[in-house]
Amino acid sequence: MSTNKKFAVILSGCGVYDGAEIHEATLTMYAIAKAGAQYQIFAPDIMQHHVVNHLTGEEMNEKRNVLVESARIARGNIKPLKELKVADYDAVVFPGGFGAAKNLSTFAFDGENFKVNTEVERVIKETVSSKKPLGALCISPIILSKVLDNAKITLGTESDPSALAAKKLGAEYIATNHGDVVIDENYNVFTSPCYMLDATIDQIGEGAENVVREIMKRLNQ
Amino acid sequence: MSTNKKFAVILSGCGVYDGAEIHEATLTMYAIAKAGAQYQIFAPDIMQHHVVNHLTGEEMNEKRNVLVESARIARGNIKPLKELKVADYDAVVFPGGFGAAKNLSTFAFDGENFKVNTEVERVIKETVSSKKPLGALCISPIILSKVLDNAKITLGTESDPSALAAKKLGAEYIATNHGDVVIDENYNVFTSPCYMLDATIDQIGEGAENVVREIMKRLNQ
Repeated sequence: MSTNKKFAVILSGCGVYDGAEIHEATLTMYAIAKAGAQYQIFAPDIMQHHVVNHLTGEEMNEKRNVLVESARIARGNIKPLKELKVADYDAVVFPGGFGAAKNLSTFAFDGENFKVNTEVERVIKETVSSKKPLGALCISPIILSKVLDNAKITLGTESDPSALAAKKLGAEYIATNHGDVVIDENYNVFTSPCYMLDATIDQIGEGAENVVREIMKRLNQ
Repeated sequence: MSTNKKFAVILSGCGVYDGAEIHEATLTMYAIAKAGAQYQIFAPDIMQHHVVNHLTGEEMNEKRNVLVESARIARGNIKPLKELKVADYDAVVFPGGFGAAKNLSTFAFDGENFKVNTEVERVIKETVSSKKPLGALCISPIILSKVLDNAKITLGTESDPSALAAKKLGAEYIATNHGDVVIDENYNVFTSPCYMLDATIDQIGEGAENVVREIMKRLNQ
């Protein structure tokens, strides 16, 4: 199966605790390729909020750049987010990881009063205004709750701080199980909880594959 | 499908140019989980040979630890390689990435005269002597060409320096296509070329899945 559909995949570093979640990012790319579509990876050219030792969970006295570290997942084939022209793509996907809440936005530190990176906000608004499908996994939908009024999204469980914050911001949070995809028909937004639930890697693959499949269905309608 | 089979997966960092290849590592874990088996990730607690900026390809003035960086792929659930008791596992798999040739061995710098990390050598010898299946993707089989006499393995194309070095060391190098698995029946070794060929991520998934499937078949014989 082959198609000319092109996805932009937006990363936030390389590693769940301070960047993009590696399994979600990889399995999103894998799902896109298996669907016969193409992808280009992007990340903002900014410093990470911090660097976390993933063995101990402790902060390290280091500085790393989001674009440079995301390039590890992209095998070097990556572009700065500011170069992303939504007109050149059919769909946009944000995998998860704390990077979405620490680098693409400040949710991890500011709760419901968080700010969103201006390039990320631009891309979301352009994608929605051009009626192109927008996918978001794991914690990434919290950003949509800030940028889009009353978006219908997944996050973790009902008691998770992100779900509570999203509801305060006016989002329609939907509690789901592994691999479920919530579709906001108004905004053309596709979300799935992935590692916001206590999941295994095959459940992450299922979530990424289901989001990509639903987006491909929409693109082929 | 569920099984009590347990794989040890050995990483060499986090990123193709100075560590474990992220897609090969992730898709190996994914293949094991989809086969209903379990895995535990290990990496040596040593410093990386160097740190490469994956955006530019240039060396960075930084120091990183193989175990700490591998923990990014493992989401923190990782153990030092010296704690790996082969008796506790049914099979061992080495994904690829330059980390296999820079951190687990010195092949990238010393060619056919390279040395192998002592813990890596111990694990390979114990796996083979206990007749357990050993999988190796991408560049990792070069290590087997040094540790095991006359091993039958994949690498890249026939003209690749790794294939030439392996043959000089006495290995039986087999040229293969994407996703092919070469099985050394003597050593119970399963190899596939993955990114040693110019491959797409879905071909990496196929290679990892085929290696895991063949190992599972062997374990269930």
